[in-house]
Amino acid sequence: MTEEKSKKQFVEDLTDQSDDFSRWYTEVVRKAQLADYSPVRGCMVIRPYGYGLWEHMQRLLDARIKATGHQNAYFPMLIPESLLQLEADHVEGFAPQCAWVTEGGSEKLEERFAIRPTSEAIIGHMYSRWIESYRDLPVLINQWSNAMRWEKVTRLFLRTAEFLWQEGHTAHASARECQEEVLRMLEVYRDFVETDLAIPVHGGPKSEAERFAGAEMTYSIEALMRDGKALQAGTSHNLGQHFAKVFDITFQDEQGKRQHVHQTSWGVSTRLIGAVVMTHGDDQGLRLPPHIAPVQAVVVPIWRKDEDRAAVTQFVGRVKEAVGERARLWVDDRDQYTPGWKYNEHEMRGVPVRLEIGPRDVANRAVMSVRRDNRAKEAIPIADLATRLPVLLEEVQRALFQSALAFREANTGYANSIEEIEAHFASKRGFVAVPWENDPALETLIKERTGATLRCVPIDQAPFEARSQGRRVALFARAY
Amino acid sequence: MTEEKSKKQFVEDLTDQSDDFSRWYTEVVRKAQLADYSPVRGCMVIRPYGYGLWEHMQRLLDARIKATGHQNAYFPMLIPESLLQLEADHVEGFAPQCAWVTEGGSEKLEERFAIRPTSEAIIGHMYSRWIESYRDLPVLINQWSNAMRWEKVTRLFLRTAEFLWQEGHTAHASARECQEEVLRMLEVYRDFVETDLAIPVHGGPKSEAERFAGAEMTYSIEALMRDGKALQAGTSHNLGQHFAKVFDITFQDEQGKRQHVHQTSWGVSTRLIGAVVMTHGDDQGLRLPPHIAPVQAVVVPIWRKDEDRAAVTQFVGRVKEAVGERARLWVDDRDQYTPGWKYNEHEMRGVPVRLEIGPRDVANRAVMSVRRDNRAKEAIPIADLATRLPVLLEEVQRALFQSALAFREANTGYANSIEEIEAHFASKRGFVAVPWENDPALETLIKERTGATLRCVPIDQAPFEARSQGRRVALFARAY
Repeated sequence: MTEEKSKKQFVEDLTDQSDDFSRWYTEVVRKAQLADYSPVRGCMVIRPYGYGLWEHMQRLLDARIKATGHQNAYFPMLIPESLLQLEADHVEGFAPQCAWVTEGGSEKLEERFAIRPTSEAIIGHMYSRWIESYRDLPVLINQWSNAMRWEKVTRLFLRTAEFLWQEGHTAHASARECQEEVLRMLEVYRDFVETDLAIPVHGGPKSEAERFAGAEMTYSIEALMRDGKALQAGTSHNLGQHFAKVFDITFQDEQGKRQHVHQTSWGVSTRLIGAVVMTHGDDQGLRLPPHIAPVQAVVVPIWRKDEDRAAVTQFVGRVKEAVGERARLWVDDRDQYTPGWKYNEHEMRGVPVRLEIGPRDVANRAVMSVRRDNRAKEAIPIADLATRLPVLLEEVQRALFQSALAFREANTGYANSIEEIEAHFASKRGFVAVPWENDPALETLIKERTGATLRCVPIDQAPFEARSQGRRVALFARAY
Repeated sequence: MTEEKSKKQFVEDLTDQSDDFSRWYTEVVRKAQLADYSPVRGCMVIRPYGYGLWEHMQRLLDARIKATGHQNAYFPMLIPESLLQLEADHVEGFAPQCAWVTEGGSEKLEERFAIRPTSEAIIGHMYSRWIESYRDLPVLINQWSNAMRWEKVTRLFLRTAEFLWQEGHTAHASARECQEEVLRMLEVYRDFVETDLAIPVHGGPKSEAERFAGAEMTYSIEALMRDGKALQAGTSHNLGQHFAKVFDITFQDEQGKRQHVHQTSWGVSTRLIGAVVMTHGDDQGLRLPPHIAPVQAVVVPIWRKDEDRAAVTQFVGRVKEAVGERARLWVDDRDQYTPGWKYNEHEMRGVPVRLEIGPRDVANRAVMSVRRDNRAKEAIPIADLATRLPVLLEEVQRALFQSALAFREANTGYANSIEEIEAHFASKRGFVAVPWENDPALETLIKERTGATLRCVPIDQAPFEARSQGRRVALFARAY
């Protein structure tokens, strides 16, 4: 296969975003080997390249979760139906989505167990046994685990029956501390998603209609995908005393009085991988933010004549040594593929930087770097590589964020009436900022007329002030 | 509560190992807050201190798994019954232990799904789709996940319905490469368990009777607990072509011929936490190996008079600064507990080194270190702390291994006949080395008469040579 032909085929194979975004998404997820379908309805396989993304996300977020004083623990994945039923809103919201274990060993069980759709119930039960005094508070626990919701319509990463996530569950002595925790974790998510995933988000409270089943208040961070649909990227819930009252989670305060705790829960999931794909990807495939890219720079050695091979190979060795632990480098020295085939594959897989090394580069004591995000080329002398490559990767990271931010700004409209909102969604997508004073009837009307839902009321209103004339806005969008 | 009274109570609370080892085990696991019972039959909650142990185990083992060329991935936790049934031995071994999902959403499912008891079936199915050519081999994939076996009798960490583990699944072009992988991973486990958990193990093949359901050959590493019972600490299976044939996992070899792959699988689980507790623990509680201890050194500040407090607190700050990232340090400055109470709690929780800092220590510019394993005290000048503490922790690590090794040697007997084996187990426990030439009838007889099973035929026979007169031995023991 010639280089030119392979290049053409590889690109032709991928549907253009503008032709069919949804098809583009599924194709790129499978061609880049992030994930695959499985024989279990609605469940996917996360392949090594996709799981590598998740491992880096976990590492970076886990450090933030621990830095804010939380510890990890692990609770059973099965929840007795009787526990799930204690909180009325919670069971109403989740029971219809549960997968149920009814047989164990070779026997029919006396009570059904739900595979956790979320763990408030089982954790609430344990907290009621562990918490006795104000000295036991706050309890700051996080869990990394799988969870399952028997969704009717599924899509790789975005909505799968089984997903991987982290769920934080905390208990506090006062409503004030509890609310501080809710906002602290929302800010942890915002910082993580913007800094490491290069995805700009708006964070703030959701409306009552969009609230987590059993929560007093739900906050979310909301991102905008390249097809103009919004995606909820993380949530932080103030559970108030709802679960504490039904699970009897009480403590003796400093005055010796028994009180119910105040609780939070917060989570992000493998859905974030879908958000990365749909925020940064283009018609050639993925564009991965360097902070989480399993391979940050791929080295492609090039020679035509056999006599060049030894010199190139030796120089590649020096490049590896020069970079050391400063970047996650992979040398693609597979013999069966041409350089051109490799270029296309690594573009499809979104490797942030490619380093080409041919005989001329060896002669120049330099490598030719090519950025995935904007294809900018730069010859980097090997003497500078150790300092230049990490900086270059940070430049790619920032450029991806800026590009996503510009896209979001270009796709944020303003509307003052239901007519203006309808007019917007008749021709456009993206966010619409609407002056907001908690009007559930208007929210319902907007949803009925346009399919858009209230994503959140941004805590940071600064981006809207120039257009909102001092009025607080809520963001509406069609959403995943 | 006075210091003396609290100390006495804390120790009295824990059953002696010699009185009732099993009760000691459960008490120490719960008092040290490693784990707790849950409302789900046979499932436990891994509390933050226990999960911290698991996180360090994961980190250390995962690095070894990656260094040997493996990548992590994630497969669905549900396995369709029809897939599980394809390999006859496999389904016969595991189906009776499965928890079954029969309802999803609000509907009865057409086919039952097993929560994975192990993942050969679902992974075999995916490999048959991914592997086409010899160029796709070897496939070297590992998964960190939960798994479930509906055990009749359960015990915290050692045997629980749900457990956490890693399971490696590899596919190779030849039987030779496959067998090399089986032994490579057995060696990775041996090195990890001996180096990081300080638990000496014997590794080698098991007998046909003890083989994994569906494997051609099972290898294990076997440890000896302080009550003289053996514990299987990890397994590595040569699956041969059993699964390849039923799942149709084939590749085109270099000559263009279609062949079945050769497969391995290998795993260790949260059971290792139980092994750490039962190998190193004593009548005062846990003794944790520093490599995996969540807290490697605890600082206990001591003052009687309020005027000492400021000086002690300031000195503690300098100690923290001096240690930096060289050890996982925790300053236990809780006001509500006396130093004596803290000593006992940290002994119970097995913190490897305690650093006492009182006014006299401040005056001497030193801290008083106390080892958990042998209570040896040593004044360490603060100027030396940064270099001395890491060395001291390594000394504790090695001493725990040596102590466990000496215990194992003292509890290994030799026997040449069924009578001698019976005589051994009539009065003693531990391992018995028996000259071995694969005699299944003798193996059955030994099990019937003594309850001991063949643990493995050690690959390294050197420890037995002095007594075995050149004959290869197998190890028998009663086991968890």
